[in-house]
Amino acid sequence: MAGISNLQKQLSEHLEQFVTPERAKRMHEVLDKRTRFLTVILEDIYQPQNASAVLRSCDCFGVQDVFYIEDRYQFQIRAGVTRKAHQWLTISNYNSENGGTDACLAEVKRRGYKIAVMTPDADTLLSELSLREPVAFLFGTEKEGVSEKASAMADYKLKIPMFGFSESLNVSVSVALTLYHTTLRLHSEKTMQQFGLSPCEKEELWNNWLKLTVKNADVIEKKFLESRLSK
Amino acid sequence: MAGISNLQKQLSEHLEQFVTPERAKRMHEVLDKRTRFLTVILEDIYQPQNASAVLRSCDCFGVQDVFYIEDRYQFQIRAGVTRKAHQWLTISNYNSENGGTDACLAEVKRRGYKIAVMTPDADTLLSELSLREPVAFLFGTEKEGVSEKASAMADYKLKIPMFGFSESLNVSVSVALTLYHTTLRLHSEKTMQQFGLSPCEKEELWNNWLKLTVKNADVIEKKFLESRLSK
Repeated sequence: MAGISNLQKQLSEHLEQFVTPERAKRMHEVLDKRTRFLTVILEDIYQPQNASAVLRSCDCFGVQDVFYIEDRYQFQIRAGVTRKAHQWLTISNYNSENGGTDACLAEVKRRGYKIAVMTPDADTLLSELSLREPVAFLFGTEKEGVSEKASAMADYKLKIPMFGFSESLNVSVSVALTLYHTTLRLHSEKTMQQFGLSPCEKEELWNNWLKLTVKNADVIEKKFLESRLSK
Repeated sequence: MAGISNLQKQLSEHLEQFVTPERAKRMHEVLDKRTRFLTVILEDIYQPQNASAVLRSCDCFGVQDVFYIEDRYQFQIRAGVTRKAHQWLTISNYNSENGGTDACLAEVKRRGYKIAVMTPDADTLLSELSLREPVAFLFGTEKEGVSEKASAMADYKLKIPMFGFSESLNVSVSVALTLYHTTLRLHSEKTMQQFGLSPCEKEELWNNWLKLTVKNADVIEKKFLESRLSK
């Protein structure tokens, strides 16, 4: 395994030659602010505009991993709205074929997250959330909200404080507010070392991003690997 | 004028008979959290989904007044998305017929607001905004952002901190984040007496809301006024 990790590092260094210093700097800045301390689970979000706005917000606030569940409705991404933001994220999909909500939440818990369902009928405010452990925020489908199943599996139920006649916010707005509020808190309460990616995770993501950035990266990678293997 | 104000109060009391105590309580709760310390100016927002989400957010965070400018594009409200949230707001429109951006910003300044343009290329963070004086947040059109004219007339330029590849957030998301952040600050830094509505403003809004709530309020009002005038 050390060999593969070393090869990945060498491939990254090779690919870096094809990236301008400005672009590499920008990519490093983004990488240094990426977090897996927070993650987002989307349950049956079906409006393409919402799906795309949510992914754009995750990118903007440095949340790397997104899980989407398609138990009842299909998740549709519109590149025009995300402005391709989604390609930089690590997106996982759960549907009827791989266990849907059950499997998704079990996997997220296995990774050490507490699950916080965001729902206007919660008694606890988002601001009261403890940031001692990693948190996965779960948002439900547009009209009916979070499913009973997901609600039963959650560790917390949280709400965003509101003072109007409307009793709920648009789901893409809820995701953005939640991530904005919580990343601001992380940045003020913790160090990047506490909630940023590990060196190993950074290495892997850096390699993926280079492949997305460099034109014909697959051809370059193939040639590079062939030259290494023939040595 | 005291007579008219008194008549309005009497009409409100008359209309209140047609509202359930629960509904009246809910309306009072919302009224008590309404503010004119913050306001929102929308410049050429043209996507109906954005327009509607913005109005819903204003209602949710208690911002009573919204100004929309139609210099280039038409502002379209979709009742399905606002869930009728817009009817509770005080909405003003500026277009080519009544002076557009110039007239709108002049009016907002006349009312004592500092104008804060929200734009990703600002140097100052939203969190650094002083809340000593009332603030009008100005948001620009979907693709090009705030116009040069509006930018030149602004007192501040502010941005929402972001750490991703995307360089901007969806406009409805920006409005919600701005209002959420700033109303949280108002609630923690000031008293409702400092940023809530005056008794006179409340009286007027209460009257308007009752008319929106009570079925056939116009008929009831007419009869009430006739009975008063015949006395």
